[in-house]
Amino acid sequence: MSTPLTPEDQLTNWLRRRVARHGVDLLGDDAAFLPRAEFAVTVDQQVAGVHFPAGLPAATIGRRLVAVNLSDIAAIGGRPAYGFLTVAAPPGLSTKPLLAAVEEELARHGARLAGGDLARSKELSTSLTLFGTRTPHGRWVRRDTGHPEDRLWIGGTVGESALGRLLLDAGANFESGRVLLAAEHQAEARTAAVARRAVRRHLCPHAQLELGEWLARRRRAAAIDISDGLLLDLERLCRASGVGATVNANRLPVVRGFATASKMMGTNAVDLALTGGEDYVLLFALPPRIHPPEGLGVTEIGTLRAGEGIEIVGSEPPDRHGWDHFSSY
Amino acid sequence: MSTPLTPEDQLTNWLRRRVARHGVDLLGDDAAFLPRAEFAVTVDQQVAGVHFPAGLPAATIGRRLVAVNLSDIAAIGGRPAYGFLTVAAPPGLSTKPLLAAVEEELARHGARLAGGDLARSKELSTSLTLFGTRTPHGRWVRRDTGHPEDRLWIGGTVGESALGRLLLDAGANFESGRVLLAAEHQAEARTAAVARRAVRRHLCPHAQLELGEWLARRRRAAAIDISDGLLLDLERLCRASGVGATVNANRLPVVRGFATASKMMGTNAVDLALTGGEDYVLLFALPPRIHPPEGLGVTEIGTLRAGEGIEIVGSEPPDRHGWDHFSSY
Repeated sequence: MSTPLTPEDQLTNWLRRRVARHGVDLLGDDAAFLPRAEFAVTVDQQVAGVHFPAGLPAATIGRRLVAVNLSDIAAIGGRPAYGFLTVAAPPGLSTKPLLAAVEEELARHGARLAGGDLARSKELSTSLTLFGTRTPHGRWVRRDTGHPEDRLWIGGTVGESALGRLLLDAGANFESGRVLLAAEHQAEARTAAVARRAVRRHLCPHAQLELGEWLARRRRAAAIDISDGLLLDLERLCRASGVGATVNANRLPVVRGFATASKMMGTNAVDLALTGGEDYVLLFALPPRIHPPEGLGVTEIGTLRAGEGIEIVGSEPPDRHGWDHFSSY
Repeated sequence: MSTPLTPEDQLTNWLRRRVARHGVDLLGDDAAFLPRAEFAVTVDQQVAGVHFPAGLPAATIGRRLVAVNLSDIAAIGGRPAYGFLTVAAPPGLSTKPLLAAVEEELARHGARLAGGDLARSKELSTSLTLFGTRTPHGRWVRRDTGHPEDRLWIGGTVGESALGRLLLDAGANFESGRVLLAAEHQAEARTAAVARRAVRRHLCPHAQLELGEWLARRRRAAAIDISDGLLLDLERLCRASGVGATVNANRLPVVRGFATASKMMGTNAVDLALTGGEDYVLLFALPPRIHPPEGLGVTEIGTLRAGEGIEIVGSEPPDRHGWDHFSSY
C-alpha cells in the first residue's frame, strides 16, 4: 500500500523543489542541517483547537511545544541547545506560565531559551525553533540511510496518544494535573485508568532523546519520529531510503488494556497503533546484526526490503492512513 | 523623559533574568548571538488583525514578514542566511503565494528558506526565524556600545509607516498592488499621493541591510532598528549603553508633504515621527568624527550624552510614547 501525501508533505516537497533550484537540499529530515554549521534546526508550532484543546493549561501547552520539537532533535540523534519562541495570545490570557514552562523544559534537557517574540491574537498559537548540536562522538541520524534487510525497530508504544485524542474529543478534560473522563468512560475502573493515561500521554508527550543519542553513536542507522502515525512516517523513511518495508502488526508494542480501551472508543487497537499519530517515539532501522540494549525498551517490528510500499502482516491493514494535523478539535 | 516598558520589553526582561540564572546573556539585541557559533538569530511574527489588516494579499504578508526579520539582521550588521517559517492559516486560505513570497524575498537577499511547519488555525499567523552571518571583515553591531558625545543618526524617514497605519484604520485598502484610500482622503491630489505612499510604506517595508553592513565595518557603532517608534527604540539603545540622548526634533527626516497628510489624519507630524512605529530604518550612534557617506542617505538627529533619559529640543515632546504591537486593527 502507498499512502497519500499529507498537506505538510506537499508543502515540504514544494519547498524542496524551490530550494533545490538554489543548489541546496536542506529539507526532508526532521530537522534541517545547515551547511558549514554545527547546528541542526527544527521548527514546530502548537495552535489552540488544532494541536491541543482550547483551555489547556498554559504550562502544559508550553511543555508540549518543547516535547514535539525535542522529538525532532531526538530523531536526528542531536542534543537540544537553543530555543526561539513565538507566542500569539488573546489579551486575557497570561502567557507567563507558558514561557516559564518552555524555559524550564528546555533547561531540563540542557537547552536554553535564547529569544522570542510576543504578539496579541484571537486564539493562542505558539511556535518554537530549536537548535540541536551533534552528540559527542556521534553523527547526525538521517531518514534516508535505511538498507534492504535492515531490521525495523520502534522506541515505545504506539496508538496510546491517538486514543487520548479520541477521549478528549469525547469530552475528557485535563485540569490541575488530573484527567477527568466523560461519565460514560468511567464505568470500568481498569479501562478508565488506561484511558486517563492515554489522555496524559497525548497532552504530555516525552521525546526519546537518549535513544536518539544511542542511534547517533551507531555506524549506520536511519530514524524518524512518529508524529503523524507509524504507517505514514514509515512511508517517509522508506521513500527517503528508496526501500520498502514489512511490518508485523502482531509485534506492535501497545500499553496493557489498550485493546479494551480502543473498543470502548469504538475503534480498533491495530488501526490506532498503525495510524494514530503524535506517539513521539522513534521508528528506526538498523543492520540485522545490531541489537539495541534491553534498557532502551525498544521492540523489533519488521524489516526493510528492496522495492517500495509497506506490507502489513499479522493483521488486516487499517482503513485510515495517518494522523492529519489539519483536522481540528 | 523616560518611557514605560512595553509588554514585549517586559517579556524580554523577564526572559533575560531567567536566562541569566544559567550564566548566559543572549537577549537584548535585535537578535541573539549564539556562543561559539557563526550565526545570530532573530524571530518575528505577523498576525492577521494585529500586524496587518485581515484580507491583505498573502504574498504581501510574506514579504512583510521577511522585511521585519531582515531589519533585525540589518540592525546587528549581519547578512541573512537561512529562514525557518511557520504558517497557521484558515482552511480556505491558499498559503502558497505566502510561501513563494517568503522564499523569493529571502533569495533576493541571498538567504534560503530552509524549513518550516504548516498548521490550520482560525486566523492567519506566521513567524520566521532568521539566521544571519557576520558581514565579511565586519563585526556584530550591538545596541549597548553607544558612548557620551557620540552623534546620533537615522537611516531614513520616520512617521510615514504610522501615517499609513492610520489611513488603513480609516478604511484604506491594498489590492492588486494598488492603494485605495477612503473617499474623504482623496480630495486633494498631492496629499492623496503622500497618503498612498504611506500605506505602501507601512505594508511593504524595506530593511536597511546595506547600511547595517556599513556599520558592521566601523570600528565602533551602536544600532537598533526602529520598530516600535524612534523614542522607544532610542530609549532601549540608551538604557543598554548606559547613556542619555538629546534629539533635535527639527532635524527628523520626514517625507515631503508629511505635515499636511498628518494634519489630514488629525495628528501631528512631529508626534508621528517620534512615536510612530514600524519605520524599519536604523537608528545608530557613531563617534563624532565619523561621517557616513552621502550615498547612504542618513541624517544626523542628535547626540548621546552622559546620564539618562531622552531630551527633545526644537519641538514639544509628544503625547504618546511609542508603537504598541499589542494594539489591534
